[in-house]
Amino acid sequence: MINLNPIQTGGILTKAAKRALIEFGDGYSVYDISPGLELEEMPAIREFVSELLPKFLGADIVRLTLGAREAMFSVMHSVAKPGDAVIVDGNRHYTTVTAAERAGLKVIEVRSSGEPEYKIDVNDYEDLIKRHNPRLILLTYPDGNYGNLPDAKTLGQIAKKYNIPYLLNGAYSVGRMPISMKELGADFVIGSGQKSMASSGPIGVLGMNKKWKKIMLRKSKMYPKKEIEFLGSELRGTAVATLIASFPEVKERIKKWNKEVKKARWFSKEMEKLGIKQMGEKPHRHDLMFFKADPLYKISLKHPKGRFFLYYELKKKGITGIKPGLTKYFKLSTFGIPEEKLRYVIDSFREILET
Amino acid sequence: MINLNPIQTGGILTKAAKRALIEFGDGYSVYDISPGLELEEMPAIREFVSELLPKFLGADIVRLTLGAREAMFSVMHSVAKPGDAVIVDGNRHYTTVTAAERAGLKVIEVRSSGEPEYKIDVNDYEDLIKRHNPRLILLTYPDGNYGNLPDAKTLGQIAKKYNIPYLLNGAYSVGRMPISMKELGADFVIGSGQKSMASSGPIGVLGMNKKWKKIMLRKSKMYPKKEIEFLGSELRGTAVATLIASFPEVKERIKKWNKEVKKARWFSKEMEKLGIKQMGEKPHRHDLMFFKADPLYKISLKHPKGRFFLYYELKKKGITGIKPGLTKYFKLSTFGIPEEKLRYVIDSFREILET
Repeated sequence: MINLNPIQTGGILTKAAKRALIEFGDGYSVYDISPGLELEEMPAIREFVSELLPKFLGADIVRLTLGAREAMFSVMHSVAKPGDAVIVDGNRHYTTVTAAERAGLKVIEVRSSGEPEYKIDVNDYEDLIKRHNPRLILLTYPDGNYGNLPDAKTLGQIAKKYNIPYLLNGAYSVGRMPISMKELGADFVIGSGQKSMASSGPIGVLGMNKKWKKIMLRKSKMYPKKEIEFLGSELRGTAVATLIASFPEVKERIKKWNKEVKKARWFSKEMEKLGIKQMGEKPHRHDLMFFKADPLYKISLKHPKGRFFLYYELKKKGITGIKPGLTKYFKLSTFGIPEEKLRYVIDSFREILET
Repeated sequence: MINLNPIQTGGILTKAAKRALIEFGDGYSVYDISPGLELEEMPAIREFVSELLPKFLGADIVRLTLGAREAMFSVMHSVAKPGDAVIVDGNRHYTTVTAAERAGLKVIEVRSSGEPEYKIDVNDYEDLIKRHNPRLILLTYPDGNYGNLPDAKTLGQIAKKYNIPYLLNGAYSVGRMPISMKELGADFVIGSGQKSMASSGPIGVLGMNKKWKKIMLRKSKMYPKKEIEFLGSELRGTAVATLIASFPEVKERIKKWNKEVKKARWFSKEMEKLGIKQMGEKPHRHDLMFFKADPLYKISLKHPKGRFFLYYELKKKGITGIKPGLTKYFKLSTFGIPEEKLRYVIDSFREILET
């Protein structure tokens, strides 16, 4: 099966990760390689968290989390207090909102340009900063609907100008494309193991500027080595073994990002030739793409399987990953899929439209 | 290798879980069996969470969490507010404290009886309740050091008398022994997939009384289906697939709990014959046991490998799970280990003492 599901293409395990999965599948077997769960007791994990990941993310300090949403909550819960405002982009994932609500924060949104490009103009943050005095600003880079990459660097300059902590949610970038927190001027960067780092879930990475060390890594009064915000340790479980096992390949694959972008642009053009319009930024700069498919929608109105026809037709052809029931609007990802297979996907869409 | 590590014996995957691990290893592949992450969109997970688990735990409602510590934090964060007091047993896991600190709560401890039994008298909660007016009481059942099982049912009556929410941390009981939240009179019960439910981590289960539904399952204003405290969904990842796959066997194994207790008591007696004293409740009622081994400590003082000698000697004999460097005090678990293997462990300790 060719899998086009955007939340799956970046999380397919490498061979090394599959081996690690089996080796460290049992509940707490990560203990087998370490006598305890303190970072200093786990040489393999310590090197990964204290050296490899900070370099990879362009961050001073990195912590593993239980996912991108948990990382967002941890930052919000530590940096802000209930009642504070957080300014986010209008394309943000829904968990940005639930994390803010869990932390008791007021969510202010920067609106996108709407159809067809749904662009976020980061300059729009400035006016909202002046009006709402936020305790945090957040940018989704890229967002998970349109795969748009807003100008994160300019937002870094705005954050600096107003001295507001700046969090970059890179769940769809960290592990797919090169990204440096410091270059973009962010205080925090978040990645997702299962979304973009060829890892089993749930696991996330949280990079931060060292100036947040005291606040983010504040220690327990009773257990002076334990970090409160991370409940002592987030190093449990099988996912961390897969994340470490895949990392050497992930580090390599981001170097081929240009090819992924080229492939996505070509795919978008071929889809448009079929009357299926790509929404979001053009020319596109990410493998995650959103399509508006009026011709498929028209077929669904008359097809005996109704709006589920596309799902079944693609499945028959060995293609999966577009949400069942969608025909007019859907998203997909071309990440890591060879060009000849994408050619086959295009041909399949053509056949479906023609018959 | 015979593995005596208390945090590992209950988390060894069943064959079904190993198959699930491989099948659902890729990042978000749990999506393959569901079109979305809403409970109602995932028939297999819905049945598990909405029907099987509540019955198993004696709870009205169950939610999956990212671990026992996250479940404790979720309850504390929802039920109490910063500055409130929580009364906990003195044998509690350290994450009870970090979770309370993360939620801004004041931790009051019920002291144990100390050496040798380290018992918690739940009647001691009553005086502290009167003095501190807590917003929550918590009992670890059993604790992870001595494997003591305090009188959870009497504490349920005390909780009811003072109308205080009562949380039972069953990380070492749920999945090992029969446990019913309702029978014990608790408002919440927590289990750990990787510790005691033959699952990969990180995953936990949180059972609750339906009277907490409004507070615990409060919804997002912007996304009325999404539960804020759980950040929308905790169903991501590979661990849930292993938890579900192992569940039929876990449900069966708790029926053999009497045999596990009998085996543990026999093991304790055999160790005592060697001069290695079992601390904690006697007669013991759990597979997790804490030992004080003066004879081994004496050897370590003169042994060229020092305090690491026991670890290496046991390893040579194919026995693992006692923390390297410990000789005088250590804990171990006999859960799921056949009697003839435990006999071999006893013989090995004897040989180590004799040579």
